[in-house]
Order: sequence, then structure tokens, then C-alpha cells
Amino acid sequence: MNGSDPEIEMIVRGGTVVDASWSGPADVLIGGGRVLALSAPGAPLPPGAEDAHVIDATGRLVLPGGVDAHCHVGYTSGEYTSLDGYRECTTAAVFGGTTTIVDFAIPQRGERTIDVAHRQRELAAEGLCDSALHASVIEWDDTTAEQLAQLCAEGIVTVKMFTTYRGETMADADTILNTMKVLRDHGGMAVVHCEENAIIEEDQRRSVERSEIDAAHMAATRSELAELAAVSEVVALAESVDAPVYLVHQSTPAAVELAAAARRRGVRVYTEAVAHHLVLDDARYRGENPERWVCCPPLRPRATVDALGTYLAKGEITTVSSDHCCYDLEQKEAHVEDVREMPNGLPGVETRLPVLFSRYVNGGGLDLRRFVELTAANPAKVNGIYPRKGALMPGSDADIAIWDPAEVWTLEAAKLHMATDYTPYEGHEVTGRPTTVLVRGTVVVDAGELVDGTARGRHVPSAPLDPAAWLV
Amino acid sequence: MNGSDPEIEMIVRGGTVVDASWSGPADVLIGGGRVLALSAPGAPLPPGAEDAHVIDATGRLVLPGGVDAHCHVGYTSGEYTSLDGYRECTTAAVFGGTTTIVDFAIPQRGERTIDVAHRQRELAAEGLCDSALHASVIEWDDTTAEQLAQLCAEGIVTVKMFTTYRGETMADADTILNTMKVLRDHGGMAVVHCEENAIIEEDQRRSVERSEIDAAHMAATRSELAELAAVSEVVALAESVDAPVYLVHQSTPAAVELAAAARRRGVRVYTEAVAHHLVLDDARYRGENPERWVCCPPLRPRATVDALGTYLAKGEITTVSSDHCCYDLEQKEAHVEDVREMPNGLPGVETRLPVLFSRYVNGGGLDLRRFVELTAANPAKVNGIYPRKGALMPGSDADIAIWDPAEVWTLEAAKLHMATDYTPYEGHEVTGRPTTVLVRGTVVVDAGELVDGTARGRHVPSAPLDPAAWLV
Amino acid sequence: MNGSDPEIEMIVRGGTVVDASWSGPADVLIGGGRVLALSAPGAPLPPGAEDAHVIDATGRLVLPGGVDAHCHVGYTSGEYTSLDGYRECTTAAVFGGTTTIVDFAIPQRGERTIDVAHRQRELAAEGLCDSALHASVIEWDDTTAEQLAQLCAEGIVTVKMFTTYRGETMADADTILNTMKVLRDHGGMAVVHCEENAIIEEDQRRSVERSEIDAAHMAATRSELAELAAVSEVVALAESVDAPVYLVHQSTPAAVELAAAARRRGVRVYTEAVAHHLVLDDARYRGENPERWVCCPPLRPRATVDALGTYLAKGEITTVSSDHCCYDLEQKEAHVEDVREMPNGLPGVETRLPVLFSRYVNGGGLDLRRFVELTAANPAKVNGIYPRKGALMPGSDADIAIWDPAEVWTLEAAKLHMATDYTPYEGHEVTGRPTTVLVRGTVVVDAGELVDGTARGRHVPSAPLDPAAWLV
Amino acid sequence: MNGSDPEIEMIVRGGTVVDASWSGPADVLIGGGRVLALSAPGAPLPPGAEDAHVIDATGRLVLPGGVDAHCHVGYTSGEYTSLDGYRECTTAAVFGGTTTIVDFAIPQRGERTIDVAHRQRELAAEGLCDSALHASVIEWDDTTAEQLAQLCAEGIVTVKMFTTYRGETMADADTILNTMKVLRDHGGMAVVHCEENAIIEEDQRRSVERSEIDAAHMAATRSELAELAAVSEVVALAESVDAPVYLVHQSTPAAVELAAAARRRGVRVYTEAVAHHLVLDDARYRGENPERWVCCPPLRPRATVDALGTYLAKGEITTVSSDHCCYDLEQKEAHVEDVREMPNGLPGVETRLPVLFSRYVNGGGLDLRRFVELTAANPAKVNGIYPRKGALMPGSDADIAIWDPAEVWTLEAAKLHMATDYTPYEGHEVTGRPTTVLVRGTVVVDAGELVDGTARGRHVPSAPLDPAAWLV
Ligand SMILES: [Zn+2]
Ligand SMILES: [Zn+2]
Ligand SMILES: [Zn+2]
Ligand SMILES: [Zn+2]
Ligand SMILES: [Zn+2]
Ligand SMILES: [Zn+2]
Ligand SMILES: [Zn+2]
Ligand SMILES: [Zn+2]
Repeated sequence: MNGSDPEIEMIVRGGTVVDASWSGPADVLIGGGRVLALSAPGAPLPPGAEDAHVIDATGRLVLPGGVDAHCHVGYTSGEYTSLDGYRECTTAAVFGGTTTIVDFAIPQRGERTIDVAHRQRELAAEGLCDSALHASVIEWDDTTAEQLAQLCAEGIVTVKMFTTYRGETMADADTILNTMKVLRDHGGMAVVHCEENAIIEEDQRRSVERSEIDAAHMAATRSELAELAAVSEVVALAESVDAPVYLVHQSTPAAVELAAAARRRGVRVYTEAVAHHLVLDDARYRGENPERWVCCPPLRPRATVDALGTYLAKGEITTVSSDHCCYDLEQKEAHVEDVREMPNGLPGVETRLPVLFSRYVNGGGLDLRRFVELTAANPAKVNGIYPRKGALMPGSDADIAIWDPAEVWTLEAAKLHMATDYTPYEGHEVTGRPTTVLVRGTVVVDAGELVDGTARGRHVPSAPLDPAAWLV
Repeated sequence: MNGSDPEIEMIVRGGTVVDASWSGPADVLIGGGRVLALSAPGAPLPPGAEDAHVIDATGRLVLPGGVDAHCHVGYTSGEYTSLDGYRECTTAAVFGGTTTIVDFAIPQRGERTIDVAHRQRELAAEGLCDSALHASVIEWDDTTAEQLAQLCAEGIVTVKMFTTYRGETMADADTILNTMKVLRDHGGMAVVHCEENAIIEEDQRRSVERSEIDAAHMAATRSELAELAAVSEVVALAESVDAPVYLVHQSTPAAVELAAAARRRGVRVYTEAVAHHLVLDDARYRGENPERWVCCPPLRPRATVDALGTYLAKGEITTVSSDHCCYDLEQKEAHVEDVREMPNGLPGVETRLPVLFSRYVNGGGLDLRRFVELTAANPAKVNGIYPRKGALMPGSDADIAIWDPAEVWTLEAAKLHMATDYTPYEGHEVTGRPTTVLVRGTVVVDAGELVDGTARGRHVPSAPLDPAAWLV
Repeated sequence: MNGSDPEIEMIVRGGTVVDASWSGPADVLIGGGRVLALSAPGAPLPPGAEDAHVIDATGRLVLPGGVDAHCHVGYTSGEYTSLDGYRECTTAAVFGGTTTIVDFAIPQRGERTIDVAHRQRELAAEGLCDSALHASVIEWDDTTAEQLAQLCAEGIVTVKMFTTYRGETMADADTILNTMKVLRDHGGMAVVHCEENAIIEEDQRRSVERSEIDAAHMAATRSELAELAAVSEVVALAESVDAPVYLVHQSTPAAVELAAAARRRGVRVYTEAVAHHLVLDDARYRGENPERWVCCPPLRPRATVDALGTYLAKGEITTVSSDHCCYDLEQKEAHVEDVREMPNGLPGVETRLPVLFSRYVNGGGLDLRRFVELTAANPAKVNGIYPRKGALMPGSDADIAIWDPAEVWTLEAAKLHMATDYTPYEGHEVTGRPTTVLVRGTVVVDAGELVDGTARGRHVPSAPLDPAAWLV
Repeated sequence: MNGSDPEIEMIVRGGTVVDASWSGPADVLIGGGRVLALSAPGAPLPPGAEDAHVIDATGRLVLPGGVDAHCHVGYTSGEYTSLDGYRECTTAAVFGGTTTIVDFAIPQRGERTIDVAHRQRELAAEGLCDSALHASVIEWDDTTAEQLAQLCAEGIVTVKMFTTYRGETMADADTILNTMKVLRDHGGMAVVHCEENAIIEEDQRRSVERSEIDAAHMAATRSELAELAAVSEVVALAESVDAPVYLVHQSTPAAVELAAAARRRGVRVYTEAVAHHLVLDDARYRGENPERWVCCPPLRPRATVDALGTYLAKGEITTVSSDHCCYDLEQKEAHVEDVREMPNGLPGVETRLPVLFSRYVNGGGLDLRRFVELTAANPAKVNGIYPRKGALMPGSDADIAIWDPAEVWTLEAAKLHMATDYTPYEGHEVTGRPTTVLVRGTVVVDAGELVDGTARGRHVPSAPLDPAAWLV
């Protein structure tokens, strides 16, 4: 503990603690915003414990708060800006059991990477919980290397790039390679959206020719092959400069296999999957209001979704994020006749953990410890903020989600807290819910109510990532 | 805690605790033979802590005691019997930082699996630390299924079989398949030595024809292909009956890849590597006293050894064991002219952790947490004894190894404690050493001395293994 | 030409000759039972040509007669003996455009390999066309090596073995390995039926438990995994002794891929597929008279059948055979309640080429030259009888099938010539038919009639197979 | 035969004809520039044969003349122009047993694809033998599709593109994809040089940093990974538009495997290897005059070379070409200090067949028929000029190379006929030599002398390639 020695202020008692590797009955002693101790039930407690606030977690699961490594807060892309700020996004996050988000600072053409990152970092203070940040490079110039070195020194070590969206955020192979090199030398890591742009544009051309460029035909406008092709190239670029790379929102088993094969030959590749690709399928596009599921990559066929899910248990997927991007129906419905004009993205920071828990832990036999690993420990590790975040261990921030594993409830936009008027899971009945959520030792959500809405968010600087080590 | 509430009897203070996923500074509070709490440095301690025995672990690593999932104690094979009993083997184990061994109860032809297991289980009490047990089936008869069901009910859930050693322990495909089926239905798992016997015998025939059947030519007498062929078949057998399987002593990257591929298609295969295959190479056979390295599978070429080692970091290897089998030089030298007449096996329970730590953690960048996962947590998980063993968490048995990560020392048979007069690592300088070792809260080794030689060993019954789950 | 110089006795004129690599318009000049010349249309012809018998092949395809590398003639297995002799089988063959069959000489327990081979070889003279022979080893004894060497010297170089049918023809791994070694040293090659017996028996046990051991449930009684497991092992055995191996009736893409992977690492593996696995699917078992499709391996799901077919064009399948085994309905219906008691096998020597031609050349874009390669040239090459058989080139035996590629006809048992009363293709409409068939320069079939039923069959001895070369 | 019926003008008698699938003793009857007949030895010959010119090929191999699918004639790249015209290049070709070359028409920036192709096509008439032509696209504009359609209609169906050489010939992914689409619809095929430019530039940057950018360090300036990365992307582009693609000069087994894997999933990928990558290794760069082996891709390590060679026999390599590019020592030596300024390319049209024959047929057990397939039949097939070229069958052009398989000779620049003053094989002793070479029925080379230097070259238009078929 840094600072003066803390007192025991709170005890989470009687629950089953679940960490990434271990799970067992234990009491969690909290003080000064941190976890002070894990104590076996019945073991003697330190003096002062009798005066501490006690949360009875009997019959509950006590998890480290989730870390959502892929959240777009107030993101402007083309004519659209997503609707939430840090307050809104983190409010939804804590309701969903997530206590750390990682946002993106993505420049518009002409903006400097470092300026955008600094500006976005300021916003962290508006949050109800803490956050980290991915910077972003969209084109390379003489100052970029220096900007990246500076950002790494400041604890912003991950940098997003895109292989698609020509004319907007698309970076060419040289830019990606240069960025990887600089990051490698400064404890950073590239974070890449992989879709081969030439194939995407061809997919879309064909869709236009067939008059199938509307939301109902979203799936065909961005083929699985585009993802595969870009993953191959991006992994090769990383391999050529011996740099680590994090592949966002992998939506196909084949992409996961490509990354796994690269890992087996020594390339430090990390694979992110996104909750909606693990739960929802492309049948949505063939039903009513297909625009509500327009995201990028699109939802895939059911067989692909289920096959992707099997990788969670086997360990080939590193993290599960939300790719949260909060548009409302007005925005989604503005251009349903042409997906190229639509805002890609789904609100998800609040639903990520409940839908995963319900589908895979309760419904799919996924080990709870693996659930914590995928949704909290690993995202924290690859972002250099572990074990301060993502762990429920002595010294960690007391970011805790207490789950009722058996509560059955229904997801409805009207009762969720994201800054939008719909959810892609409207009407889904799920089992398992975070009922009490602590941020740095303070209860912010309890029994479905926001009990403390103080903006106490901090930017959590990332530690340098060891370029020679496997992060998970 | 079961029983009356325990007192704090001991505190391991000031060290860095390393568990399978997490590592950090923490004090370990011990009582009643168990870990009572992990406490952040500076956090208030429970009453009574001031009277507890304090072990100062400043600058040290505090690890859960190792679990060695592959130890032959007093094993009779052909004309040879390995030289140690439980006392000797566990004495060596604790000196090497290992506090749980898993032994084998392997029948001679005509003996019943269950009788041999019961007999061997009795010996556990002679140990200085706890142990679990693998039963073994060498041929199938009408009573075998019932014996296995009974053993599973008693907490002996893993069953060793061999695809080689014709006329001795070799089980045919039908026996292996039948055993897998029964185990699957009773929370058990097959543990298989994989070498295709027809290929092994052909390898040996060729060696005989070349007059190269002596110890100096050990490597060629058991080819890598024999391992691969048997792994393919055994994995297929497991797949055909949807049963889990644990593959012992995989010595080649190709075998690890085969298992990994099977896992990716859903077969619950676990891969064990053995310390000597990860450190030593077949150059030993071309030097002096080649018989000292005669083991099965044999040591492999350096490129194979190094390639195998890269899988440790990437997670495709589940456990690292010792395959401890304690013969002395007289036994090893009795038939150096014909490896078919020699006792296969190397003493290793004491050296497993130091050589791995030195080669891979200090010398190879292996994350310490992964080291604990490979050598303690995972072996405990696949044997159904986690988190009682293999974890350093509240409620776990207080089996703890305190390491000095920087101590440089030299391995010499004369100073080791195994019941033999040589070590395959004679003269190896290693860095890192377990200096203080606790068994269930009692210090048994300290500063290189045995400070408590009480035989307090217990057989630890395994919990049933969930046949539908991934154990690690 | 050996013997005195031949005269031109016959000219096949105006057709399009199709060989394994080349196709083009050419006249085929025949004399002395052999092809004397291929001549471009309009080129001057040798003297005597004006007196030769001319077959007008305008608009027709002129192919080398097919070579069927997998035909059981009068095969006794258990209580059943297939119903045809050489006369019947070869009569059907020539009607189907096949002019060379390769039969099996499979011992009963107690019979000597060489005796059975010699006895079966005698029967060749009863045929309307020529034949070669596979010997077979079902168990190894002190005389087997010598028998095999003798057979190779006599031109019987391929030796069938089975990994299944315990108690009947099943050979153990040692026998297979020993046989491979001896053959390798004498220009021979093992020919192996690959199904892992332990898995097959388990499949059948499960079927019995579910009361699904009848013909309607044939597919589940012999799983795809059994094929895969045995292929892995047999390929490993071949690899361990650096011997070539021919895998009969591969029914799954996964098995084809395993063999392809082995080839890529240098193992000389050849893959046979069977016509009925390439055309028919397991829906047959769910319809009427499922017993009519009981074969081994069983028919597979439609997706498997179609996927297997894609390998024809890509070259991973070496040959397509019939696995002809001629039982009649009385035999097929005798034990429909238990497939274990039924005779496995389908009549097919007559239908192999028409169904393949119709499905894959006319209906699937398969290049005609590849069709000839798969069904004539390659079977001849791997059996050491090329280019005497399987080619339509100067010096080859004038075994020729003239096809009308456009004739539409219907397969009906009543109009076929196999010694049975049904066909698995009853009612199939096919396009393409061999209308005129020559055996060594003599027209035996013309316009759907047998015009020469003389028994002129000869056993064609195989040339030694170069153990170091790729045969195709 | 078109036109009036031809007379027999020449007979190649007594040799062993070798075609892609078949080989045997046969006489070759020639008239009107074409093969009129293949006739078995001793068969009666047509009238007029007695007056024909007879070439005695007793003890010789009679092969279809080679087709070299990758020849740069008078190619300008940067400041360098290769030194030969059609006369010089084809003179060297025929001396080397090659009777058809396929040249490239590569635009400079600003030139139109079709204009350059038309201009280059005119040059064909200067050749001693026939030629075909690859067009090339380096950037896409509104007229490109129409140009390509027009070229396909004219029989120029293959179009070269480059993924590297930024600012010169490099085409971006969109251009490659668009070109593939248009070609697919008009019976054409893309022909792609695959090296990922970003990786190449990075390789070169590193070499510059190490002051190792000179010829002695050529190998490291263009890594194997660059080839792999580009192959992945180019194959994905082809797959995305269901178009065939031909990958030139694959230099690594891994690239061959990538293509093979794509073929197995249905992508029509064809793999070219180049003679010098199959024979020479990168040790050359470490010896004297490293500039003489500067080519692109560079020579690879010996293990890679040998591994690549094993694919010839197994069929995963489609063609073997020369990548002939004829610079002289003055050009090669002008900038040895910086490979980026050097002309890439080696003279090879004359040595391709002899070095391959010597190394792989005589020295490596490669089947002669496969040799013909790789060097004549397959190059002709993928270029739409088979069986007019690449076959020795009735109706084919009488382009014939008669080989003495046993002649031992030494390669020396002084005795070769390429328009340069060195050969990368100086001093190589090879076994096997084309001694007599016919172009369309005329002997042009005999006994090492040019006996007819008439410029009778024609451009051979390619037939449309069936986009749905496998070309080989
Ligand atoms: Zn994205
Ligand atoms: Zn995103
Ligand atoms: Zn063993
Ligand atoms: Zn062992
Ligand atoms: Zn069979
Ligand atoms: Zn058969
Ligand atoms: Zn090139
Ligand atoms: Zn080139």
C-alpha cells in the first residue's frame, strides 16, 4: 500500500470469489480504494473489521469488475457521432458489471495523434469509473514516431489502426509497419481493425449491382474473406518487425486459427472477440429492423457464431470486448437503404457481461474463471493495467462486481442505461446479473439502482508492455 | 474453514506471492495447515498475528508448492525396481520445492488394478508431503469396469495405460477405449504413454542390425515417429468416445501440435512435458556414460528440445512433470550394451523445478505465473486436487515454496536427496532455489536443511473431473 | 513391337483420343493386339490401312479402356461368397468400358498367401479381358517374407491388408509393418483397408445399445473417425520404414487431407476413392431397402460426398475404383436386422465409369483427361502395368473404349451384366456411355451387345514399383 | 490437319518419346510443321516415309520443346534494359531445348497496357521460335477493363502485375482485384509477382542501417516473409472474386504450401518456380562476385532450395520457368554497393532445362514425364497454347528437342548463346543435353551448331482459359 496504512472500510463477505485462475469462498477486505486482503471464511479478521461496512455476498459470485478493452465514447465517424460521453458510457458500464473501459482517440484527417489522445484523456474525469485509452494513427508523417514515443512514456501504449475505411481512417501497410516498429521499441502495441479494403469495396460493389446494399443485406457487404486477408497481412507485418499486435473484433473461426498458427510460430498476436459476434447471428438482417444490427464486421451465420464460441473455452481468444458504439434509432434508420452511409456499431458496454455469462457460463459450460480471464484479467494484461485492474487480489483497485448467478431478467432498452433508445438484445432473457458494483471501494450500483453517481473517473496509465514476453 | 475456526499460526511476510494468474506483494497468513488470508503489505492484520511465527520473505518469491504429476515411487519394471519409497521420494520433492507428488499403481500381469492401487495408496502415509495416485490398467477383463468405477468413487480418477512394452504393461486399443469410456462416465481420465509399439520394435530391430543397440545409440531406438503415431491413435480413441485424455511425456513439437489440433476441434487432450526433455538433449548419448540419460522417450536433438520449450510460453503444454524414476548407477550400468535390457528412467523429482526455473524463467523469459501454472496449478487441476493443491489462495493447503530467485548453485548428486548416486544434471549451475518449504503449514525444509522429517503424508483424493469441461 | 512386325488390322477413325495428359483428334491404328500408331487426321496412312477394319468414331471419344484397381471376384467373406467368376465380372467390366481389373487373393485363416495368389491367378484365363492381382497377408509367420519376395518376382507386387475384421482378415500393426518392409525391398507396395477396429467395434456396440444395428442405421456403425485413425497409423507405419502405401476406398475429405499432408512431407501415399462414395450418400439408408447400399466404408452424408468429389479435380485422389463385390438381393436381405452379419459390398465394375463420367465430367466440369488419369492411367501406374494398360499410346495393348459422350441412358439391373439382380443405381439416368469396347484389338462389345465372348483373359504381371519414386 | 493433307517430311526414329504422362519407344512422323503421327517401332509407315528425312534418335530422348513461361526480352526497368531481342533470346532458347517463350509487355508509367502489348507482339517475328505474351497492368484507369477485354479477344490472356517496386510497376490491391475480375470474365488470368512492398522496404531499411545493402547481403534485403505475406493477400484477392491466379517465381516451401492449401479449398492457384531457385543457394552472395546472382526474389538458403525441390515430384509446383533477364557484367557491376540500384535478374532461358534435368532427373530421381509436364506441358496449358505447344502428340507443332541424357558437359558463358558475358552457372558440369532441336519441323540446332537461323517466329495466340476449370 502506498500512502499511510489503510483501514478496513468494507468487507464483502460470504461470497465465492472468482479470479482468472482461482475461485473459492473468501471474504474481501477493502480500504483506501483497494483490496486489502482475501480471507478464508472463518479466519480471524483484523481489528477494525467489526466497524467496516459489510456487504453480504452469501450465494453470490464476487468478481473483479470487468475491463472492456474496446469502447468508443463519443466517437465521430463521417456524419455521425456516437451519443454518449464518459458519464453516460461509464454509467452503463458499471450497471453491466464493467468498471474499466478502454476508449479510442481517433483523429480526423489532419489532426495529430497525440493531440487527440490528450484531449480524449481529459474526458476520463467525467466517468463514474476508470478508463484507459488507445491512441490511433491514420497516416504517417515525420512527427509520428516522436508522438508515439511520447504517448508511450505517458502510459498510452496501444495504438489503433484500420486497414479499411479508405479516405477516412484507413492506414496503409507502410504506416502500420512503421507504427508497429516504434511501439515495439517503446513498450507499446498496435491494435488493428483487419478487413482488406479492396475486398470490402468489391463486396459492396457486388451488393450494389444486385441492388442489395441495404441493411437487410448487410452480411454480404463485408465478407469473412476480407477479415482473413487483412489478418494475414497484418500478422505478417508484425512478424516482419517482431512486434506484438492485437487484432480487434475477430468474427470468424478462420481468423482465430490464423492468429493461433502465428502464435505457434512465435508471433505475439492477441485475438479479441466481441460479445455480439458470439451471441447474435446474421438472421437478424433478414428480419425486421435489420439496421439495428448493422455493425462492422457484420453478424455472421449461426454456424460461424457457434464455432467462434468454442474457442472461448480452448483459450485461442484472448479477450471479449463490446465494441460499444452508441447510436440511436434515428441515426441507424437515416440511411437503411445503403449500409455504406450508415453508422456501424452497436451499443454494448452494459450488456457485454450479462449476455456472455448467460450464453456461455450458464448456458455453455464455460468455466467462470475463464469468463473472468476473458473479460477482465486478459484485457487488463494486454493493456498494461493488470493487476491494478482485472484482478481481485491484494493491492488491486477495489473494482468489484457482485453477481447473482441465478437471477433471470430481460434485456430491454428502456431499462438499460446506455445513451440510446434500443438494444440489439431487446427482449432477451438472460440468467445472471451484476447486482452490486464497487468502483475503487465505493458502491456505485446496488440492487439495480445507481447509488453514487459521483464522477470519480481517472485515466489509468498503462505500464510498458514487455515486447519480448507473452502478455497472457 | 471446516472444523473450529483456526488461529493465525504463521505469517510469510514481505514476499512476492506468485500464483497461476496473479502475482504481487502480499503477506500469507497461515493456520490449521491452510492459507487463511492473503493480505496487502501494510494492511491491518488480525489479532493473534503478532504472536504468529513470521517468516521474512523479503526479496523472495512465495509460490504454491509444486505438484509433480508424474512420479514413479518404488516402481518395478522387469528385473528392476526403482530405489525410493515415499519417504525418500517426498524428501527429495520438498527439497526441490514440490509438495505434492502423483504416483502410479501399475500392476504386474495377473494383478488387479484396484488391489495394486489400494496397496500403493497405503504408502502415502510414509511421505513427508501429500500425494495423489494414478491407477493403471494393463489388460481388460470382466471386472475392470467395476474396479474403475470403484476407484473413481474413492478419488482415484486417473488411470495410466501404455501403448508399448509388449508383454509387460502394453494395453491394446480395445482396452484403452474401454477404459476411457468407463472413466468418462465416472469423472475420470486416461493417462497414456504414447509410443507405437510396432514402430518401436522396428526401430530397435534396425538398431540391432546396425549393432547400435547400446546406450550410446539410445536416441534412434525410439523414434519421434513412434510417439506421433501413438498420439494420433490415442487421441482418435478418446475422440471416438468423447473422453478426456492426458498424454504423458510428450517429447516432440509435432506431438504437441497434434494435441493442439485435436483441442481446437474439441477433444479434451492435455499435454504433459517432462523437465529433462525441455533441458537436456541427445548429445548426452554421444558423450561419456550415456547410460545415465537412458529414458523413455529418449532425449531428443537440441533443435527439438528448444522448439518444445517455446510451447511453454504459448500455452500448448498443460503441465511439466519429472517422470521421476530413481535408479542408481549400478542399475543403469548393468546392461549398457542393450538398451532393451536397461531400466528406463531418470531421477528428477528434486531437480524439476530448479532446472525449469533456471532455464526458462531466468534464462528464457517465461512468465513466473506461467511457471506456477505449468508446475503446480495445472497439474493439480487435471488431477482433481485444485485448489487444495497447486494454489496459494485462501483455503488452500499451506504447501508453500519460498524461492530465492537469484541464488546460484550447482546440482550435484552428492548434495541432492534422491535415493540414487547420480543426477543427469551433475555439475549444472542453476539460478533460483526453493529455500524454505512448508507442508500444510509446517516448515520442513529451511536453508538447505530438513528441519522436520515427520511422515505426515496423506493421500489426497481427487474430485471427479467434469467430463464436459476443459480442466485448464 | 516384339515378334514379327505387325500389320494394320484395324483403324479407329475420326474420334477424339483422350489420354491422361493429352487429348486431340487422331486415328488409332491397331495390329497384333496393340496400338501401332496415333495419326493426325488427314495424315497419310501406312500401306495396308485401306484393308483394315475401320471403326468410325466420328463424334466419339476414344479412351484407353478403364483399369479397375479394386475388384473382388468370387470373394468369400464369412458365410457369403460373391457371385461372379472372372467370366461374369469381366463381361460386366467390358460393358462398362473397363478392360483391366485388379482382383484380390485373400486367404482364409490357415491358408498361405502365395498359394491363394497362385490359385486366383489361374482364373484370369476365364476372363474376357486381362487382369492383375493383389495378394494379401492376414497374419505373419516365418515364411511370409519369402512368399512375398517370390510373389514380387512373379509380378504380383501389391498386397492387401486390413486393419479391421477381427478374427477374419485383420492384420496387426506388426504384420503390416513387416509386410511393408519386405515389399519395399522387392518392388512391391502395401494396399490397406483402413478402419481402426476398436473404434468400429465401439461404433457397433453403441448401435446395438440403441437397437440401431440394422441396415437402416448402417452409417453410424462405421464412423468417419475410424477411417481417420487407421489412416494415421498406417501412414506412420509406412513412414517409419520408408515404404509406399496405397489406401483403398478413402471415403472422407479428412482422410484425403491426411494422405496429402503425408505426401507433402515425403511419404509415398496413394489415395483411392470408390465411385459409390463419390456419387451416392447415406440418405439411402433412410429410404427403402437400405440393405442394397450396405458397403464398407458406408455411404457418407451428402456434404461429405460432394466435398470428396472436389478432390478429383485437384489431384489429391490417385485413383477411382469400384470396390466391386457382387452379392444379390437374397444375400443382402438375409440379415438386414444386423449389419455385422451382412455381406458388405456393392456390384460396381460395370457402372463405375458411366456414373463417374456422368456426374463429374458431364455434370461437374472434370477434365476428361483427368477422368482418364483417375480411372485408367493412374490405376495402371500404381499397379506396375502402365503403359501396357491405362494408356492409348503406341505400343500399348489395344484396350479401347469408344464413348458416346452424349448418350442418355438409364441404369437398370435388368440390363446390366453383373451377376446379381440389383444395382445401387437402379433408375439413375446417366449421360455418356462406352458403346464399343476393344480388348487387345478385338471388338468385344458393340452397340450394347457382346459381339465376342471368347475367354482371352491373361494375368498381366506387374513390373516392380520403384520404391524411391513417385508412381504418379 | 488444316489445309491440304500434308506429306511425311521427316521422321525422328528409334528414340524414346517422353510426354507429360506417357513415355515409350516411338517414331515421330512430321510434315507441314506438325506431328503427323506417333508410330510404334516396327509398325508399317505411310507411303512417302521412305523419302522423308530421318533423324536417328536411337538412345536418345525425344521431348516436346520446352515452354518457358517467364522470359523478359529487352526489358527496361529503371535505368537498365536487358540486352537481348527476340532473335538473341530465342537463339539461346533453342540451344537450351526450349522452343516457345512467353515474354512480358510491361508498361512504363503513362503507357497503355494494350499499346505496349501490341508493340511487343510485333517483335515475335524476329524469333527463331514461337512465343506468347503476357500483358501487364501497373495502374487502373477507366480504359483498362476495355483494353483487357480486347487483349483477351486477341489471344493475350495473361496479365502480369507486381505487388512491389513502388513508383515503378507496383499495382495496388484494387488494381489487382479489378484486373482479376475482368480477366476472369474474358478467359484470362492474372500473373503476379508477390512480395509485400512494406516488408521489402523495411528489410532494405534494416540492411541500410547495418550498412549491408550491397550485393554480398542481397538475401536479407528481400525476406521470405515478404513473399509469404503477398501470396496470402493475392490469393485472397483471387478468392474473393473467384478468379484464377498464377504466382510467379515462388522461392519458398511455405509459399508453395500456402498455394496448395488454397487449391485444396478450391482457389485456382498455379505455382511457378524458377530454375535458379531450385539449384543455386544464397552461399553465392557470400563468395566472389555476388552481384552475378542478384535476382528477385533472391537465392535462398540451401535447406530452402532443397525443400523447394521436393515439391517438384509431388506435384505442388505447376511450372518451372527461367525468369530470364539478360544483363551483362557491366550492368550487374555498376552499383554493387546498393542492391536497390542494381538490375535484378539472371540470364537463364538457355540453361533452364539442362540444369533442371541434371539436378533433378539425373541427380534426383524426378520422373522424366514430370520433367516434361513441369517445363513444357503445364506452361503451355496455363497459357492457353496446349497442345499446340508443350506436347509431342499428333497435331502438335513439331517443336521437338532430342536429348542425349548421358552427355556430360560444362556450362560456360563463352559457349552459351545468351546476349551476355556471364552465366550464374559458370563451370557447372551437367549431365544431359538437347542435341537436336526442331522448330515446327525444321532442324534449327544440331550437334551444338545453329543450322538454321531463319527468323520464323510467330506470336501464338492463347485460347481463352476456362475460368471454372483446373488448367492442369
Ligand atoms: Zn473496428
Ligand atoms: Zn471498434
Ligand atoms: Zn512413460
Ligand atoms: Zn513414467
Ligand atoms: Zn475394404
Ligand atoms: Zn474391397
Ligand atoms: Zn518478378
Ligand atoms: Zn520476372
